[in-house]
Amino acid sequence: MLTYKAPLRDMKFLMNEVLDYQGHYKALDNGAGADAETVAMILEGFADFAENVLSPLYQPADAEGCTFKDGEVSTPKGFKEAYQQFVEGGWQGISYPENYGGMNLPMSLNLIKSEMMGTANWPWAMYPGLTTGSINTILQYGDDAQKDAYLPKLISGEWSGTMCLTEAQCGTDLNQMKTRATPNADGSYAITGSKIFISAGEHDLTENIIHIVLARLPDAPAGTKGISLFIVPKFIVNADGSLGERNAVTCGSIEHKMGINSSATCVLNFDGATGFLIGEPNKGLKAMFTYMNTARIGTGIQGLSHMELAFQNALPYAKERRSMRALSGAKEPEQPADAIIHHADVRRMLLTQKAFVEGARSMIYHAARYSDHLSSAVVRGDEAAIKKWDDKLGFYTPILKGFLTELGIESAKHGQQIFGGHGYIKESGMELIARDARISTLYEGTTGVQALDLLGRKVLLHGGGKVVRDYTTGIMKWCGEYALDKDMRQFVWALTKLCAEWNMLTARLLLTARKDRDIVSAASDDFLMYSGYVMMAYHWARMAAVAFDKLKNGGKQPKEFYLAKTQTAEFYFEKILPRTSSHAEAMTTPSEVMMKMDIEHFIID
Amino acid sequence: MLTYKAPLRDMKFLMNEVLDYQGHYKALDNGAGADAETVAMILEGFADFAENVLSPLYQPADAEGCTFKDGEVSTPKGFKEAYQQFVEGGWQGISYPENYGGMNLPMSLNLIKSEMMGTANWPWAMYPGLTTGSINTILQYGDDAQKDAYLPKLISGEWSGTMCLTEAQCGTDLNQMKTRATPNADGSYAITGSKIFISAGEHDLTENIIHIVLARLPDAPAGTKGISLFIVPKFIVNADGSLGERNAVTCGSIEHKMGINSSATCVLNFDGATGFLIGEPNKGLKAMFTYMNTARIGTGIQGLSHMELAFQNALPYAKERRSMRALSGAKEPEQPADAIIHHADVRRMLLTQKAFVEGARSMIYHAARYSDHLSSAVVRGDEAAIKKWDDKLGFYTPILKGFLTELGIESAKHGQQIFGGHGYIKESGMELIARDARISTLYEGTTGVQALDLLGRKVLLHGGGKVVRDYTTGIMKWCGEYALDKDMRQFVWALTKLCAEWNMLTARLLLTARKDRDIVSAASDDFLMYSGYVMMAYHWARMAAVAFDKLKNGGKQPKEFYLAKTQTAEFYFEKILPRTSSHAEAMTTPSEVMMKMDIEHFIID
Repeated sequence: MLTYKAPLRDMKFLMNEVLDYQGHYKALDNGAGADAETVAMILEGFADFAENVLSPLYQPADAEGCTFKDGEVSTPKGFKEAYQQFVEGGWQGISYPENYGGMNLPMSLNLIKSEMMGTANWPWAMYPGLTTGSINTILQYGDDAQKDAYLPKLISGEWSGTMCLTEAQCGTDLNQMKTRATPNADGSYAITGSKIFISAGEHDLTENIIHIVLARLPDAPAGTKGISLFIVPKFIVNADGSLGERNAVTCGSIEHKMGINSSATCVLNFDGATGFLIGEPNKGLKAMFTYMNTARIGTGIQGLSHMELAFQNALPYAKERRSMRALSGAKEPEQPADAIIHHADVRRMLLTQKAFVEGARSMIYHAARYSDHLSSAVVRGDEAAIKKWDDKLGFYTPILKGFLTELGIESAKHGQQIFGGHGYIKESGMELIARDARISTLYEGTTGVQALDLLGRKVLLHGGGKVVRDYTTGIMKWCGEYALDKDMRQFVWALTKLCAEWNMLTARLLLTARKDRDIVSAASDDFLMYSGYVMMAYHWARMAAVAFDKLKNGGKQPKEFYLAKTQTAEFYFEKILPRTSSHAEAMTTPSEVMMKMDIEHFIID
Repeated sequence: MLTYKAPLRDMKFLMNEVLDYQGHYKALDNGAGADAETVAMILEGFADFAENVLSPLYQPADAEGCTFKDGEVSTPKGFKEAYQQFVEGGWQGISYPENYGGMNLPMSLNLIKSEMMGTANWPWAMYPGLTTGSINTILQYGDDAQKDAYLPKLISGEWSGTMCLTEAQCGTDLNQMKTRATPNADGSYAITGSKIFISAGEHDLTENIIHIVLARLPDAPAGTKGISLFIVPKFIVNADGSLGERNAVTCGSIEHKMGINSSATCVLNFDGATGFLIGEPNKGLKAMFTYMNTARIGTGIQGLSHMELAFQNALPYAKERRSMRALSGAKEPEQPADAIIHHADVRRMLLTQKAFVEGARSMIYHAARYSDHLSSAVVRGDEAAIKKWDDKLGFYTPILKGFLTELGIESAKHGQQIFGGHGYIKESGMELIARDARISTLYEGTTGVQALDLLGRKVLLHGGGKVVRDYTTGIMKWCGEYALDKDMRQFVWALTKLCAEWNMLTARLLLTARKDRDIVSAASDDFLMYSGYVMMAYHWARMAAVAFDKLKNGGKQPKEFYLAKTQTAEFYFEKILPRTSSHAEAMTTPSEVMMKMDIEHFIID
């Protein structure tokens, strides 16, 4: 059986020793409440809930799955009770404004909450996770009446939310979206169409569900310039806040999937359902981009979550399971065989998991600081600040989403390999992590979509690779500080070389793309993975620098944690970072190599 | 829904144009019957059975799974009827001697049959697949009476077989095996113990099941030197060939797994079951190595199978599904969007699948020629020839098993990515391929076990890397023939460089291993993958050479097939082969980087 223990030591290392969260919080509008003591208390609270309430439900709920009957969806045993506890704890609202019932704490704490809940039980965490999408949308684009009507109950968790984008014929390409909105006499709209893959689209956890729906107005321009956003509540909300009539939005079925079985993935049919325009007409796409940034970071957290759970549960097995002797001689001669953790190849897999999860956490906790700024700008309604932080975050989003979810899949795979044949059996839970991880590179934009967003939009479109230049300048400045540090030398040299190469590759792609537009797509996956590995290397170097400092100047405190950090950093640089070589080499392959095959020649009978 | 069409054109290309199967068959003891016409007819027959009988059962059977009740296992609907057809066709026996009812054709045709059946429906194909394990064991190690008693009904397919190795406490490490065999007064043995993960251990397809069981005699030396092999029939076979009493071997339960749900994975309890010693006492391990070579090539074929099915079914989707416009401009301007096959990144995934599957097929069909020699040596009882061909095959086995199954998983993953969110839904079948592929790197020895077998046993232990020197000498000789060929230059240069590097890396590891034994384990995974990519590159170069020749000198026959071959070869060399750089770089990392972390420091609370 899978178990979860929140890695509080590692979280605190990042927040307090590497990323100076307390200093950062002090500079935030809504950071005052997040003093060290409160943060510690909140982390303990999340940990307790995740470890003791959510984690035990994870495997049984997967086996049970959701049930669909007559338009109603029942979640697995225990989900409702857990959700009730979540609502009672007020945890949906920790990072939302007090005037709507929230705790007004920085958004980063909400992301760390998501990590813990998601690691313990990802499919359960999707229900409150989707709600944050609709809260954020209403908070940023809703008018005051809409905020007053929906936010308090969404922020308390009494109601949940969804985001309804995908239709059968289109996911990524919203140009092809068909759902229609026709004005009613009373200022509302009649929404008609069918949406698929709607997570938490119907369930039994809350008394109302607030759908945010993309649809077209009658006079809308074609394509994405004609998309508007609508609030479509499952039950119409009366003026006094009570629930009115059932709206004409029904769940047609739930999907049978590879995993996340206890998260209901719904077909939602809108049959002239009453909707309320949110934001300006035909400006829905922009709002979706904002939503997407958040959702993609959330999916990046999914990558982190699966890494953590796979690692935590593979490690004890590797210490217990005995097979053969270590090549360098028996390590447990009194036993019939050595524990498999004594085999270098098993350690390679465990250290890969460890390097990934701790590197990923650092990347996410770093980006979470931008989320803090962005979300406090949204609350202030400060458009310039929103744009600034949204842009900053925009560079990280596709890397966190695209790169970390791929690593989440790899990490889950290592977990199965460490378990051997037992990793394929349901009981071990490793196969569940692998199945659940598998969705993360597909939804909220596939890895291909992230890769194109990174290379095409974020890197090449603006200032000819400026974002890479800026980012690597930061790395090189930092490296400069450690140029004479003997312990750090290996990391600093490797990073410096990679910064030069990353810029060179970017420049080369930019040049090629002038004549060969397809190169941007052809190179995108390699560019994404390359960027991810370099970014993670920078994070590992920073963590190593702190750890070396503590080893030398940390006084009497226990040193093991820091020693393991420096050893893991070394492993990452020696054994993982060489992957950049292949990506660097492959990404400059001319697109012609991919494009020239005739579409009918891929298979010839 | 998944469909399967046997890629006969590609199979014939390899057999007739690249690997000269007809010339090879002429030199075989049992090759006479395998003339071009017979082979063509047999391939058509397999294809028809796989496409029309097995393929339609694949997805429904996964949903239904096997049922366990009171010690009996029921296979999914349609499995029995399909198996009956298989028996009626006489297909279990195509590559076995005529005196036991077989068709006496070369073993390679049996492997090609396995490919087609396995691609159409891997879990179904496991039932007859396991039988070949017990046929081969009895053929090589049984006495005449045992051969007469068991082979005819196994070879006809009326009975099936299993291989019972694994126990709860050990899979790879047979040292720890506990099952005991006590002599009975009549010369038989009483077998007592429990075996797990026994594929096809119990089912309703055949009237009898012949288990080959590893157990220890009372006076057996400890460890693997004390393992003997026993035949344990489900029903005792009377002297007249009729079925006698039910033996004391019972199925305790079946496993709940990530995939291969319609293949019954059984716990078998032997409660003083009657067993018959096969081969010499305490020499069971050697026989198991022979079995393993076959089983591992069989699992390599599983890699190929999943690649083929994922590619075949992703391709039409990529031609139909429309999303966005190609970066180089609209390719289907009359449509609302371009088919996704016009995006370079999607082509990258499709071409990766294509390069993998066609490269893998070439590797397997090449190794199958050694299987032909080996199995005809077994029939002749020619020990020297058995050793020769077993040794030759020994170099390929861990690469086919270890490398191709990893690529099978990757290929299934690309299939899901091409389908986007739909790839996660059961209906598409892509998730089923991914789940079923997942077992292939776990059973019959994990990838880690294959990697260690390759680097430790096959490469370093004998002649200090002689096998790599010999293999690369072959490649370089071949390259020499094409040194002046303009079309082939890019391939020849790349291969020559890789041959030098492969030898250099081997020598370096050999040297390091003298002082640092753990390096063999630490480097093994990178070495395996590196070797696999280079071997596949050689196969692609050979296929390209044939294809270029046909393009230039092939007369009036259609050229598309050959053009696509050369384009795929180019893709492989440009976009896939750079992966060797990372593996080359990572494999020389000192083992200390993996070994030095204290076992208790991997996670510190």
